[in-house]
Amino acid sequence: MIVVDWGTSHLRAYRLNASGDIESRRAAPLGIMSVGHRAFAAVLDDFLGDWADAADGPIIMSGMIGSRQGWIEVPYVPCPAGLGELAAGVSVAPSTGKNTLFICPGLSCRDADGIPDVMRGEEVQIFGALIARRDLHSASVCLPGTHSKHALVRNDRIQGFVTHMTGEVFALMREHSILGRLMTAPQTDLDAFDEGLRRARQGSGLLHHVFSVRTRNLMGDMAAASLSDYLSGILIGHELAHSPLRPPVLVVGEPGLCALYQRALAKDGIEAELVAADLATTRGLNAVARLVGGSRT
Amino acid sequence: MIVVDWGTSHLRAYRLNASGDIESRRAAPLGIMSVGHRAFAAVLDDFLGDWADAADGPIIMSGMIGSRQGWIEVPYVPCPAGLGELAAGVSVAPSTGKNTLFICPGLSCRDADGIPDVMRGEEVQIFGALIARRDLHSASVCLPGTHSKHALVRNDRIQGFVTHMTGEVFALMREHSILGRLMTAPQTDLDAFDEGLRRARQGSGLLHHVFSVRTRNLMGDMAAASLSDYLSGILIGHELAHSPLRPPVLVVGEPGLCALYQRALAKDGIEAELVAADLATTRGLNAVARLVGGSRT
Repeated sequence: MIVVDWGTSHLRAYRLNASGDIESRRAAPLGIMSVGHRAFAAVLDDFLGDWADAADGPIIMSGMIGSRQGWIEVPYVPCPAGLGELAAGVSVAPSTGKNTLFICPGLSCRDADGIPDVMRGEEVQIFGALIARRDLHSASVCLPGTHSKHALVRNDRIQGFVTHMTGEVFALMREHSILGRLMTAPQTDLDAFDEGLRRARQGSGLLHHVFSVRTRNLMGDMAAASLSDYLSGILIGHELAHSPLRPPVLVVGEPGLCALYQRALAKDGIEAELVAADLATTRGLNAVARLVGGSRT
Repeated sequence: MIVVDWGTSHLRAYRLNASGDIESRRAAPLGIMSVGHRAFAAVLDDFLGDWADAADGPIIMSGMIGSRQGWIEVPYVPCPAGLGELAAGVSVAPSTGKNTLFICPGLSCRDADGIPDVMRGEEVQIFGALIARRDLHSASVCLPGTHSKHALVRNDRIQGFVTHMTGEVFALMREHSILGRLMTAPQTDLDAFDEGLRRARQGSGLLHHVFSVRTRNLMGDMAAASLSDYLSGILIGHELAHSPLRPPVLVVGEPGLCALYQRALAKDGIEAELVAADLATTRGLNAVARLVGGSRT
């Protein structure tokens, strides 16, 4: 079976064996924003090449490929939602190839104040992470990244979730702000990261806390090479302080970034378990594919 | 008398009459970052031109011109500080011209957690704003901008202050983030601004709140032309929620931006009075000049 995670910046494909384990993988910076004239069919065809020739089953995809800017817009499924609702919301992409192309929907929810939130791609990883830990049917799942997601799963259903723009704000500040101009090539400084976490718990709010990246350097309190980790600690600290995760906690994503979240959570006495993004994606897409296949054959 | 406000992005000069009122003014985008090879003397000479020829007294300057990236670094004066400490911290800039050039120091303080904060230029405006309101010796003074400042003045001395990167974060998000890409040419929408203020008071923190700029548009809750004001409300709301101002409150700066702060403060029952930036700058520099002149002649 071939499963595909097609996001804003990357296209990733996996060939799975009958047990759903990864046999081989491919990735390229062919995110949906880089695909001109909506030539999704041609890009996917080129990218999969011999894989698609050899496959005779459907190909299932998740991520921003199902958004308004993607191949076709697959409507969001509202929370609470389980794998069943996700599979029922799958759409078929228009294609002339021999493989049926399924695209998973994203999820939507509204918070206590009635404000909407959305995800596309992470819902598959959340279900996949729980499947990878077969003993878990309820958990808090944290997916760090450009737009970090915190989801609450109860009895195999995603009850709701919250998005934090942590990664994007971090990148904006490093690349475009007055703070970024102070930063020399960063050296990993976990003490500075920890100081950032502590800063996030103090008064006066995030817009004030980030200015201390500048002032601490200016007043000789912190070296330029440590400022990036300090800023990272402030932002991750704010994310976690405002949206508490209750054990058991799974952290899904890139191991280096996840390790920072695990470190931050450990300071609150929470031992969070890492699930690699690839494993979560493939376990989740495999499960959706089986449900879709079951209902359509 | 000639007084000069020389900041990061702008150079502003004022000619004052004997009462300290503005007789004429000049401004240009000749901030210290645009002055190559530290040619401050030449740039100022060109800019003042006939004004300097006609003047025979000292010229006094405030702002980033006294920073490490400026003409000479004038050390910060620690809070609490009054006009006297400010005048005592003034340095003379190296120049071959006939006018003595004084540069005001900035102020520094440390918050309850020992983290430093700094300002350069706003301290002069704060003292000037109180002088402009002769009946006030104690007040909260808010200076909205790229780096908003909130200062507490008691008995004519600045006790301490807090910086919020509100304006810079707003600009970063409009110009470089995924949110900015959604925004069409903004139309003033004060209802959207108010909704942003309300959003800032709700749970889950700033990194989550800013994502609602995207999701509310995506779900058809808010028009693209209103998103900029909504984002502005969220950020100003966070600034004010985390750093309460107690009456009497003066708001010093550009009238359009100050009006948004006044509107936000009014929702908490605080009637804040506007003091125009030019008036605050000139009243403050005039007062420092008189003290410096008095002590040096």
